[in-house]
Amino acid sequence: MTLILSNDDVEKLLTMPDCIEALETAYLDLAEGRGVSRRRSDCVTPTTWSEDAVYGLKSMDGVVPALGVGAIRINSDIITNPLVGNSRRRVKVPAAPNDRYVGLVLLFSTHNGEPLAIFPDGVLQHIRVGATNGLGVKYMARENARTIGILGSGWQAETQLTAACAVRQIETIRCFSPNRDNREAFATRMSEMLGVTVVPVAQPEEAVAGADIVLCASNSLDPIFFETWIEPGMHLSSIKKPEIEPAAIKAAQRVVVHTHDTEPTLVVARNAKFQEASKGDDWNKARKLDFKTFPTLPEMIAGRVVGRETDTEVTCFLNNLGLGYQFAAAGSVIYKRAMEQGAGHALPTDWFTETVHP
Amino acid sequence: MTLILSNDDVEKLLTMPDCIEALETAYLDLAEGRGVSRRRSDCVTPTTWSEDAVYGLKSMDGVVPALGVGAIRINSDIITNPLVGNSRRRVKVPAAPNDRYVGLVLLFSTHNGEPLAIFPDGVLQHIRVGATNGLGVKYMARENARTIGILGSGWQAETQLTAACAVRQIETIRCFSPNRDNREAFATRMSEMLGVTVVPVAQPEEAVAGADIVLCASNSLDPIFFETWIEPGMHLSSIKKPEIEPAAIKAAQRVVVHTHDTEPTLVVARNAKFQEASKGDDWNKARKLDFKTFPTLPEMIAGRVVGRETDTEVTCFLNNLGLGYQFAAAGSVIYKRAMEQGAGHALPTDWFTETVHP
Repeated sequence: MTLILSNDDVEKLLTMPDCIEALETAYLDLAEGRGVSRRRSDCVTPTTWSEDAVYGLKSMDGVVPALGVGAIRINSDIITNPLVGNSRRRVKVPAAPNDRYVGLVLLFSTHNGEPLAIFPDGVLQHIRVGATNGLGVKYMARENARTIGILGSGWQAETQLTAACAVRQIETIRCFSPNRDNREAFATRMSEMLGVTVVPVAQPEEAVAGADIVLCASNSLDPIFFETWIEPGMHLSSIKKPEIEPAAIKAAQRVVVHTHDTEPTLVVARNAKFQEASKGDDWNKARKLDFKTFPTLPEMIAGRVVGRETDTEVTCFLNNLGLGYQFAAAGSVIYKRAMEQGAGHALPTDWFTETVHP
Repeated sequence: MTLILSNDDVEKLLTMPDCIEALETAYLDLAEGRGVSRRRSDCVTPTTWSEDAVYGLKSMDGVVPALGVGAIRINSDIITNPLVGNSRRRVKVPAAPNDRYVGLVLLFSTHNGEPLAIFPDGVLQHIRVGATNGLGVKYMARENARTIGILGSGWQAETQLTAACAVRQIETIRCFSPNRDNREAFATRMSEMLGVTVVPVAQPEEAVAGADIVLCASNSLDPIFFETWIEPGMHLSSIKKPEIEPAAIKAAQRVVVHTHDTEPTLVVARNAKFQEASKGDDWNKARKLDFKTFPTLPEMIAGRVVGRETDTEVTCFLNNLGLGYQFAAAGSVIYKRAMEQGAGHALPTDWFTETVHP
């Protein structure tokens, strides 16, 4: 049977510790050259949805033999570029029937090639980002880290905080987010979820002062953490390039990035009104930061570099780019749990296989 | 609803003339830079299926705004490399449950992103190759071509012959294939299917002598058509690089290739026992043929080059590499006909979309 799972299924089936463990196994395979990852490609064309929108078909894949799976993640998006302040933002429109987005993961067996499961990418997209930064915390934060300062109150904040708490004994959490309602709601929800009190604070400095771990989890295109805020022994964690001021990255004794993969392969129609977001390699160049000079998370997990040697070092993990590979790793857990628990719609595998030689 | 279709459905729904027409529209879009195609990528790793096999996850995609669709084609293969004679052959094993192959096409709407259909690639894989060479015949063979010589009796022969007969008034067909049973069975089957007598012949020279159109449709790794067989006004058609002797290609006055896309992007695990088939760019180089110097089918359809000017010119069409783009173009017809005829399993589109922002 091939399983069709929903985001609700994924949320119930995939715990953060399971996801972190699967990614750790998978990254070791990747570092050893046994697992493979194909970087994202984006096909972009006009759409009849509206004149100022584009259609985007994105795909990325990866195969994790250690976990017995390969996966492809596909996004089929209607994207607009509204002017927000002085800059253009890329906004996905839930244009599919019933106002929905289209993002799918197809999971295959490396043993016999069969399609194991099909599920949406939304919930997993969130968990895998958090879990990846959780591995950064596991390998780079002090063993005795007890205090977290988090900047942000969205889903990136939720999963990153959950992951950090899964790998360290956290006792104190302070959260800053510009909008008071958001940070208070986040604090209430996460306090209950984690069993650790999350204190909302009105200034970012309040959140990070004295923190052993600083988690940046914003959607900002400008820095939100600055060099002057650094304290000895801190671990800095970020989910996108602009969050940590370049001077702060340079001030850290140890910096590790997620991957050396480059930006997506773009195939853009001549007549598509496409604004590339300014967060790619240009960002690095402008700030004289070459992410390729920093070791990667898989290299650190494989023991080729040390995440931290002393309690006073400042360490920094930059989750610079996602990989289809992560969807394969986490997908293996989702599938295993779904089979154990009988989750999802089970369809005949014959519907997704064939007798004709392709 | 999202349709799940089978190869049987595809075979019933997609006629050769419809496929040729859709491809023609799509290639015009591609030539004008309005349609986009992302070249194939192959992820290759070891598999637990057997020690001498590998697992391959292949994907290619394309978007045809003129037809309102984007598609991704995915293959999840167990591949062995048996020694056949002196050379290694790549053989796909039907390893999925019930001895089946795994090749899928996912079709999406460029209007709202929704997943329209999922179907196997096997039958379409065959039809799109034939239809592409059919366009070569349409634009390059003499208008008054009446005789076909075909070399080969497999599925490539069947679809290529069907396509040629869809674009020219063919009266005589001679078929050579090394195995007598095969060529006779092919002749009987195709005579009935096409309403034109197909005569099996014992030598390739008998098939091609006096033919207006020569179709090469073999799985040979060596040339099967030679320069000395060329006659004035002939159109030569091939589905893979080695079939036509390089001297014969050079002797043609007009040569058009399918695409300037290069060979697939390979991402191969360090420990995968992977033998790349020797049919790529190396083949061109060794024979001093640079396919990039020949115009492409989309350029010819867009009118930038002429396929034929006189009745005595020798023309040649080389279908050098497939594109995910073809699956999108043909997929649009399959989906349209399936909706008209109520074919396939209709599943709720909500199963393949999401409310969570990915």
